[in-house]
Amino acid sequence: MAKEKEFVRDVADINENFPQWYTDVVLKTGLVDYGPTKGTMVIRPYGYAIWENIQSQLDKRIKATGHENAYFPMLIPYGFLLKEAEHVEGFAPEVFTVTSVGEEELAEKLVVRPTSETIICSMYAKWVQSYRDLPVLINQWANVMRAEKTTRPFLRTSEFLWQEGHTVHATAEEAQEETIKMLNVYAEFAKNVLAIPMLTGQKTEREKFAGAAATYSIEAMMHDGKSLQAGTSHNFGQKFAKAFDIKFLDKDGTHKTPYQTSWGVTTRLIGAIIMVHGDERGLCLPPYVAPVQVAVVPVAMHKDGVADKAKEVSENLRAAGLRVKLDLSDNSPGWKFNEYEMKGVPVRVEIGPRDIENGVATVVRRDKFGEKTTLPLDGLAESLTALLQEIHDNMYQKAEENLNKRIRVVKDMDELEKAVNDGCFGLTMWCGDEDCEIAIKEKMQATSRNMPFDQTPVGDKCVCCGKKAKYKIYFARAY
Amino acid sequence: MAKEKEFVRDVADINENFPQWYTDVVLKTGLVDYGPTKGTMVIRPYGYAIWENIQSQLDKRIKATGHENAYFPMLIPYGFLLKEAEHVEGFAPEVFTVTSVGEEELAEKLVVRPTSETIICSMYAKWVQSYRDLPVLINQWANVMRAEKTTRPFLRTSEFLWQEGHTVHATAEEAQEETIKMLNVYAEFAKNVLAIPMLTGQKTEREKFAGAAATYSIEAMMHDGKSLQAGTSHNFGQKFAKAFDIKFLDKDGTHKTPYQTSWGVTTRLIGAIIMVHGDERGLCLPPYVAPVQVAVVPVAMHKDGVADKAKEVSENLRAAGLRVKLDLSDNSPGWKFNEYEMKGVPVRVEIGPRDIENGVATVVRRDKFGEKTTLPLDGLAESLTALLQEIHDNMYQKAEENLNKRIRVVKDMDELEKAVNDGCFGLTMWCGDEDCEIAIKEKMQATSRNMPFDQTPVGDKCVCCGKKAKYKIYFARAY
Repeated sequence: MAKEKEFVRDVADINENFPQWYTDVVLKTGLVDYGPTKGTMVIRPYGYAIWENIQSQLDKRIKATGHENAYFPMLIPYGFLLKEAEHVEGFAPEVFTVTSVGEEELAEKLVVRPTSETIICSMYAKWVQSYRDLPVLINQWANVMRAEKTTRPFLRTSEFLWQEGHTVHATAEEAQEETIKMLNVYAEFAKNVLAIPMLTGQKTEREKFAGAAATYSIEAMMHDGKSLQAGTSHNFGQKFAKAFDIKFLDKDGTHKTPYQTSWGVTTRLIGAIIMVHGDERGLCLPPYVAPVQVAVVPVAMHKDGVADKAKEVSENLRAAGLRVKLDLSDNSPGWKFNEYEMKGVPVRVEIGPRDIENGVATVVRRDKFGEKTTLPLDGLAESLTALLQEIHDNMYQKAEENLNKRIRVVKDMDELEKAVNDGCFGLTMWCGDEDCEIAIKEKMQATSRNMPFDQTPVGDKCVCCGKKAKYKIYFARAY
Repeated sequence: MAKEKEFVRDVADINENFPQWYTDVVLKTGLVDYGPTKGTMVIRPYGYAIWENIQSQLDKRIKATGHENAYFPMLIPYGFLLKEAEHVEGFAPEVFTVTSVGEEELAEKLVVRPTSETIICSMYAKWVQSYRDLPVLINQWANVMRAEKTTRPFLRTSEFLWQEGHTVHATAEEAQEETIKMLNVYAEFAKNVLAIPMLTGQKTEREKFAGAAATYSIEAMMHDGKSLQAGTSHNFGQKFAKAFDIKFLDKDGTHKTPYQTSWGVTTRLIGAIIMVHGDERGLCLPPYVAPVQVAVVPVAMHKDGVADKAKEVSENLRAAGLRVKLDLSDNSPGWKFNEYEMKGVPVRVEIGPRDIENGVATVVRRDKFGEKTTLPLDGLAESLTALLQEIHDNMYQKAEENLNKRIRVVKDMDELEKAVNDGCFGLTMWCGDEDCEIAIKEKMQATSRNMPFDQTPVGDKCVCCGKKAKYKIYFARAY
């Protein structure tokens, strides 16, 4: 292939300059582009297709747990934000504010939703009247906006896409059960669809959502040793219900204040996928979210029957439900190999004259570099379907091994600092005092991630102040 | 059923007060509620599920014609609007404007997208460099905002949901082909999914989209004799490409300006469904968008085996891919019958002791009032699947008959006025002069709807001025 147009990967070294690697990969594989306004992104078709695959598979789980989707207005009267004191404190500085329509000033300014608790609660106050109206189990897929000083595509942008569940329950127990149930839905989804293992647990007071009684999170370990909060589930207790005067007539004939939850994941999950699975060759996409699962590349395309066979194979694979890209462009096979490798396509299928003669296809996995096998054309859809599951499992296992390697039990500040410097979660004990979280953040730029449900102690003293410890907790540097 | 809790339909008479009937139906069936801000709506789960069904089936068609989805920022720099003169004139008065973030004033004001041509063209100017980059075939599902003075849920609200396709082509011919192709996709979708016949044709200069070279529309006839524009497809020619300096290097080595299209449908389609198919008993939903296709109602539920059989039947129907609501609540069967009738569920299945004895279910169609049949439980999923298609066909046929009855060929202003007073499209000839459109609007509040592709004349003089006619055209009162 001497005449081959040279493929220019042009991606920074993943181990030497991870932030540059990330930027190179997201731009050069066509996932995303920068929008014209500061801090915005354009999600290009290759990136948006990942989001569509996330959406459809997560939406199924959200519905299977009894929730329905709805849509609430994007602009929220400013006065609504003021009703819950912690909420306004958390969000007011970063909301985009609409003050006019055309040339006309608005009587009350409106904010672009940074999240929808307030406007949704204003409707729930109307809809919830009796115990018969409970539980309310509603989810919304929407765009939201929060101004950010430093932004990165998918990880932190002023506008992003997400889903936000908002539920109302008769009792505190039910609300807590819902909060944990949805956290577990996220963790299961991350495992079985994104091939990402998550640390689940409760956030500290300092790190919880503005207005929540308790926040729980899923946290994942990125390639560079930083943690990424990938989803949250909040138990609001009665805070918003009181602020918005939501009440229901219970079976016993008395009026009661219900309990609420909310939970969400965002386009940030795409960032997690990139940073967990990516490698020196570019993206490596988990099969169940990959826009293209199989790239079919004809080799010696000019030879009789090759292009036709490649078409036929592609059609068969598509008919079996696989997402297939058949590349008949005039780029060289080598160029195409590089292209689909950089774009993280899980499987490449090569069809050449010799393959056709032997009734096979040459199959190359993205997750195990350099491993080439042949598979019979007969039954190829079934064997590739099985292979995609195998690839998924292998990617999950690699990610899990990396996570486990990067959890280090530590007892004091020196050990913790060494752990975060080494790109690890420090699993340690904490007294529960916010001052210790602040001290740790100041000393080593690490934050508390969450407190795992398994609270079996790994010591008895606080990692920071040395006083009696109350909680087992993860600290890490984080996005 | 003497103890039956009385069902209160409480919906205005569809023939006496259609606007009130519409409001009653959309609120009381739980499709929608008014948002807290003027002109906004909350799409409740029952309404949003219709939108999800529209989305998934239209999205398949958009993808099958080669388009991919993407997502562009919602806030557009105000300066972008100014670049295309007609576009800014059309949209500037109704845009919601963001002037600050938190307490900080923005250097340049931003507008909430009323449509996305400008921001998308700003990106296309970057992405389109060579003939190899063409065609660009991108679609976006998003929310948009346009201030409206008088609003009605689904038909006209300040915020609505839609899809907007935005394509770029090397030649004028390709752009025109795309424009018509997508118009036809909408018409086919309306027929086969919404059971609504559409009049397709070209808009006049006066009624075209702000910035388009030519606009085409699908128009449907509502129950009250008014037309509803249900979707549009625009050929932009080179207008936006020139305004945004989009250029490509063609095969012949010269730089050329490409041609563009855009096309969209909105949540307004839900309004069309309601107003085409609804009747004196409430909603009547076409099977392929109905959130619930089959309501299973046990009769004499307290009797042994009835509830269990209803559950078993429901499970079987669900397993076959039908959308089923099993109602085991303690409301009376009569109450449930009324409820699902008002909510427009296409098929009600009653399971009572006698049915079980006979191995059948009692089946009631929503579209043919009062028609009860029995179907064997054995093979019920298959027979109901076939029945849903039959219902769809019957609903389409009824709507088509109504449309045909309401198209009247007219020759002069008196005939046209009588036609629109009778709730008809006036199909007539027009000289092409905007003054005549204005005169017709002033005299009888009717507007030109579109000029059908079949231009076989129905006369030779303009309906208004009597001069030589150029175009065959539909006029009607419209939403």
